[in-house]
Amino acid sequence: MTPIRVFVTGGTFDKEYDEIHGRLFFKDTHLHEMLRLARCRLSVDVSTLMMVDSLDMTDADRARIVESCRACAETRIVITHGTDTMSETARALAGARLGKSIVLTGAMIPYAFGSSDGLFNLGSALSFAQVLPPGVYVAMNGRVFAGSRVRKDRTTGVFEEAP
Amino acid sequence: MTPIRVFVTGGTFDKEYDEIHGRLFFKDTHLHEMLRLARCRLSVDVSTLMMVDSLDMTDADRARIVESCRACAETRIVITHGTDTMSETARALAGARLGKSIVLTGAMIPYAFGSSDGLFNLGSALSFAQVLPPGVYVAMNGRVFAGSRVRKDRTTGVFEEAP
Amino acid sequence: MTPIRVFVTGGTFDKEYDEIHGRLFFKDTHLHEMLRLARCRLSVDVSTLMMVDSLDMTDADRARIVESCRACAETRIVITHGTDTMSETARALAGARLGKSIVLTGAMIPYAFGSSDGLFNLGSALSFAQVLPPGVYVAMNGRVFAGSRVRKDRTTGVFEEAP
Amino acid sequence: MTPIRVFVTGGTFDKEYDEIHGRLFFKDTHLHEMLRLARCRLSVDVSTLMMVDSLDMTDADRARIVESCRACAETRIVITHGTDTMSETARALAGARLGKSIVLTGAMIPYAFGSSDGLFNLGSALSFAQVLPPGVYVAMNGRVFAGSRVRKDRTTGVFEEAP
Repeated sequence: MTPIRVFVTGGTFDKEYDEIHGRLFFKDTHLHEMLRLARCRLSVDVSTLMMVDSLDMTDADRARIVESCRACAETRIVITHGTDTMSETARALAGARLGKSIVLTGAMIPYAFGSSDGLFNLGSALSFAQVLPPGVYVAMNGRVFAGSRVRKDRTTGVFEEAP
Repeated sequence: MTPIRVFVTGGTFDKEYDEIHGRLFFKDTHLHEMLRLARCRLSVDVSTLMMVDSLDMTDADRARIVESCRACAETRIVITHGTDTMSETARALAGARLGKSIVLTGAMIPYAFGSSDGLFNLGSALSFAQVLPPGVYVAMNGRVFAGSRVRKDRTTGVFEEAP
Repeated sequence: MTPIRVFVTGGTFDKEYDEIHGRLFFKDTHLHEMLRLARCRLSVDVSTLMMVDSLDMTDADRARIVESCRACAETRIVITHGTDTMSETARALAGARLGKSIVLTGAMIPYAFGSSDGLFNLGSALSFAQVLPPGVYVAMNGRVFAGSRVRKDRTTGVFEEAP
Repeated sequence: MTPIRVFVTGGTFDKEYDEIHGRLFFKDTHLHEMLRLARCRLSVDVSTLMMVDSLDMTDADRARIVESCRACAETRIVITHGTDTMSETARALAGARLGKSIVLTGAMIPYAFGSSDGLFNLGSALSFAQVLPPGVYVAMNGRVFAGSRVRKDRTTGVFEEAP
């Protein structure tokens, strides 16, 4: 079984509700729990690179994501990422020409709030990562896009091919 | 966007709890609700062929599944199916050599009971169906198997390559 | 804070889905988890007396429930019970004239399947148990009934006053 | 069956996740859905007075709550309310001496995020409202407090008797 690396960067996926202050925040990733509940039998290694809202992601953060993808032993990689700037990170990765199959995914609803789209997207991303040729991809809503030609429609929240 | 046909046959995916009689039963499929919650943006058409526990599936049922896959216009197909005899149906489909990409999937826990594996597997199956070449496959637990060489380990509930 | 004793006897509340055999079964009670998620701050002690479908409950089981209620130090007691024979157990307890406030409750949907009525009924039963005078009661669907004058309508699943 | 009036004022109970803007907001109350899932069989009438975070509740809002409680035909009332200023509203109601049984309740986790404490507290509040004598009460975490002598510990989020 080809090993898959999962890099966690935060995003809606991992937002939680802080019941003392009544606001959303990041604590630990839910990826381990999601993979367990999904009864996932892949050889997956999860590393948390950062836990940020993707609107707060800096160029340095993106450089770190690119370097982590380059440095890891695996050639098949899934990155969980906030949806707002997922396209920017995808373009940064595409520009780096790493020769690996890299799939970015995310969620519209936090997993902790009973997110159905997070589980669905995670299953989707791990599947595309296993079979797509080297390249950078965005897997959202069941669809897969070339990482260099995708954008999120901010009004509808839907990913689409960039013109 | 390539259209995908989903054939529903029942299985754990769609089992519900009958609160009057305290037992499990089948009513309607949850596929539509699952696709909606997953915010799926694929062009998917869902048809219910039958609603049975796969242990009760007959040869006639399997013949009907094969014929439905042959007859539909789509060349990319996902079949939701009970896990107990999923391998048998996969072999029947493989034997029919339909020249389509057909992915069988299922769940260990009913969706109505908060199934995480159902949503994960559905995301996985719809993704494999989009990119794999013509053939019959089983997508379970994040993995994908050739339909002619897969079996379920009845003691652990895990799918594995058949010897 | 008046201490409350919770006696667990099984019933729909605690049914789980056996994913290997595809059927419902009993393992451990979910009461501890339910109280934790409900952030319950009462002084509650939980004891499991038995884990049975109430249709399988024997006279010996009922005698044991009565004796446990008599023997415990607490004067305020909640009993989780299958709904099918909850009225019979309530009558057995009422006949024993224990001089304690005893509230039976249950659920129509197993907690493990995302039961909303289990959590609602548990909150209800623990509240009635704190304030009602000595006697035996059934708390279901937000309502409270005298234990000696209640029955379940088997066709609708609804509890009502017995004629 | 004594009719119960439920007044909705917002609070954590009814917060939702806005998937386009990634923040919490109020839309419609979840009370109807909660009562339905709880299979509640009480005669309950739900009115939404306002949908606000209780930190934003004004004196005019509190006056409106008091007047609504005075004006309604029912003598048994449940109010869903944000936890942060629930004690203030309880004191305002207690000062009005309405001669009705009024129970305030809330949740630490939004219902839409799979809140267990919301359902538990709702079951609890509706039960206390049926049996407690005229007065103002706060029902949280299974406990009930006199409305004139309760406060929320802001560091732990727990309600306790005010000194």
